[in-house]
Amino acid sequence: MKIMILGADGYMGWPTSIDLALRKHELCLIDNYTKRKLMSEYKRKVLTKSNKLEKKIQYLHEFNRSISFHDLDCTNTKQFEKVFKKFRPDAVIHYAELPSAPYSMLGAKEGWKTLNNNLRSTFNLIDCVKRYKPDCHIIKLGTMGEYGTPNIDIEEGWIKIKHNKRTDNFLYPRQGGSLYHTSKIMDTDLLWFYTRNFNLKVTDLMQGPVYGIYVNKFATDKKLETSFTYDDMFGTIINRFIVQGVSNIPLTIYGSGNQIRGYINLSDSIECVNLAIKNPPLSGRLNIYNQFTEQYSVKQLAKKVQSALSDMGIKCSTRKIKNPRIEKEKHYYNASNSNLIKLGLNPKLLDNNIIIEMAEYVIKYKKNIDKKIIMPKVSWK
Amino acid sequence: MKIMILGADGYMGWPTSIDLALRKHELCLIDNYTKRKLMSEYKRKVLTKSNKLEKKIQYLHEFNRSISFHDLDCTNTKQFEKVFKKFRPDAVIHYAELPSAPYSMLGAKEGWKTLNNNLRSTFNLIDCVKRYKPDCHIIKLGTMGEYGTPNIDIEEGWIKIKHNKRTDNFLYPRQGGSLYHTSKIMDTDLLWFYTRNFNLKVTDLMQGPVYGIYVNKFATDKKLETSFTYDDMFGTIINRFIVQGVSNIPLTIYGSGNQIRGYINLSDSIECVNLAIKNPPLSGRLNIYNQFTEQYSVKQLAKKVQSALSDMGIKCSTRKIKNPRIEKEKHYYNASNSNLIKLGLNPKLLDNNIIIEMAEYVIKYKKNIDKKIIMPKVSWK
Repeated sequence: MKIMILGADGYMGWPTSIDLALRKHELCLIDNYTKRKLMSEYKRKVLTKSNKLEKKIQYLHEFNRSISFHDLDCTNTKQFEKVFKKFRPDAVIHYAELPSAPYSMLGAKEGWKTLNNNLRSTFNLIDCVKRYKPDCHIIKLGTMGEYGTPNIDIEEGWIKIKHNKRTDNFLYPRQGGSLYHTSKIMDTDLLWFYTRNFNLKVTDLMQGPVYGIYVNKFATDKKLETSFTYDDMFGTIINRFIVQGVSNIPLTIYGSGNQIRGYINLSDSIECVNLAIKNPPLSGRLNIYNQFTEQYSVKQLAKKVQSALSDMGIKCSTRKIKNPRIEKEKHYYNASNSNLIKLGLNPKLLDNNIIIEMAEYVIKYKKNIDKKIIMPKVSWK
Repeated sequence: MKIMILGADGYMGWPTSIDLALRKHELCLIDNYTKRKLMSEYKRKVLTKSNKLEKKIQYLHEFNRSISFHDLDCTNTKQFEKVFKKFRPDAVIHYAELPSAPYSMLGAKEGWKTLNNNLRSTFNLIDCVKRYKPDCHIIKLGTMGEYGTPNIDIEEGWIKIKHNKRTDNFLYPRQGGSLYHTSKIMDTDLLWFYTRNFNLKVTDLMQGPVYGIYVNKFATDKKLETSFTYDDMFGTIINRFIVQGVSNIPLTIYGSGNQIRGYINLSDSIECVNLAIKNPPLSGRLNIYNQFTEQYSVKQLAKKVQSALSDMGIKCSTRKIKNPRIEKEKHYYNASNSNLIKLGLNPKLLDNNIIIEMAEYVIKYKKNIDKKIIMPKVSWK
């Protein structure tokens, strides 16, 4: 298949590129290093400096010659259109979004940049698919955060509502916890509008926070590593806890620690994207899958990390801090995730071995850890 | 009160300005004539050329000296912030949005312009209120079109959902019929995110298609008239039918004519905005009112116009044309509109007298009618 990957340089984008390259797809990778630039602008650092795509692709060419790369801003309508028209992909994986809740809440500049980047890249993609390749399968990364923490069970994207003796099916109601999450809700609104009216084929993957390293006999080669973030702005919680643990600083719990979310291992995420590629929807259908494998509270996560690190002889404590976010700290949470399991996902759950494997990886780069970038610096208020 | 009106030059913006001026509020009017410029760019014309705000305000100054005007693009963050900070309004009426469904579906350029203009003006307003005047009441024009045509009763903005024996309240599910309508859904998402997290006070008015002329002993003065559109892009259906009727051209019905919507007279709209101003929500609350007074199918509207014009001795026929829009042509429609009635709205319903009064007004300007701009030129497909 001809597959385009928007945001191919990212934590997920690059492992996806490796995986699809090894599966012998013809790939067109797109990135303009926005996240790298933002991390540098806001003085955040990754644990391991990943090579730039130009370089990484050279290594991949050993296995697959059909990989091209364009240093391209997906919000640039004309440039994006030019590349899309020429490549005419069968599927597009859309990761080209600003992914940080704290960044989106920093100020008006960052807030608008998040809204504009995420909506405009999605809009440009939809417009190109509609005009030049209407049977192209759009696979879009959404987030479980679109649903928020409702007091009813979270279904996979859709809900049947019975009201005054009549019924209809709707997108499951959404209310996110940050402007970033709100931008993803808008993405879904936009995709659903065009899907139902112009018979597009779209899969929206509602992903929970991802953690882990990408394990693949090729990808573990240092030259092919993906980025690993642990800072307050771009890092995700489990990765951060492990970095805190191996650095002998307490695992910081925002607020009560009773906040529950669904989590997923990076390897499973890549597999989910594969399952999505292999199972395109019919024209006019928006498939929505909840992409997480297990639910934990923040406290439970901290305990799991403490316990696994203790097996390695590393003792770590926890510390509660004032929650910089505005979110419910005691709430009902029960989300469905059976769609991807039905398609064949075999989850890699968060056990001691996984945490130890991650900790060993982090320890290898321990000298790179910058303790100053871990504590939250962006408050919602 | 100190009230800011964004989009003060528009069909609703200007009568609102007159009304609030006569009520002796201190007003700050904003517009940059975007709609006039677009109408000229796309070769659409109004029935009566309304004076520019600079001029119209001079007449209003006879009744109220406290009216200022800024020729300002609300998407320009810095300029908008400067004016907002200085004026520090108690309430803002936000009409500064591109209001045309056909325009938004014309092409990628117009689509993105609609999304960008509507979201960015709303975002800038929210950001200024949050930072400089958190108790300012935002009154935002939404549209009944946000709800689409669901198979269940349409409530006023919110719905209680019972699911697997648990319940929660949500924004009523939304799916619009054009990119314009989708941009208004996103506006609501954005307003609700900031309202609930930052304790703003917001009223979102879900308005049905407006028709009519603004009757006020001052506003009927030609110098103070508002614009009246009847073209395919910016005109609304009842105004267009009356223009077609007095021009001896058939009333064009898109598709089956069984599409049902809720309609409202312009004078009632202005009164609704007044009721909203007088009844601000508590902090952290988003009040949503369905702003229409009666439901009709397209066919029923055509009949009403035919019947009233026939009383004036004008015979007019109807003609069905292929629907340029993608919409259900046979559907359930039952929307609630009791909130504004409870607040005191006394609806002016669409009877023969109203139609005759409008027809007489249109006849006065009959020589201005351009028959070439009436038939739909933008197709969704």
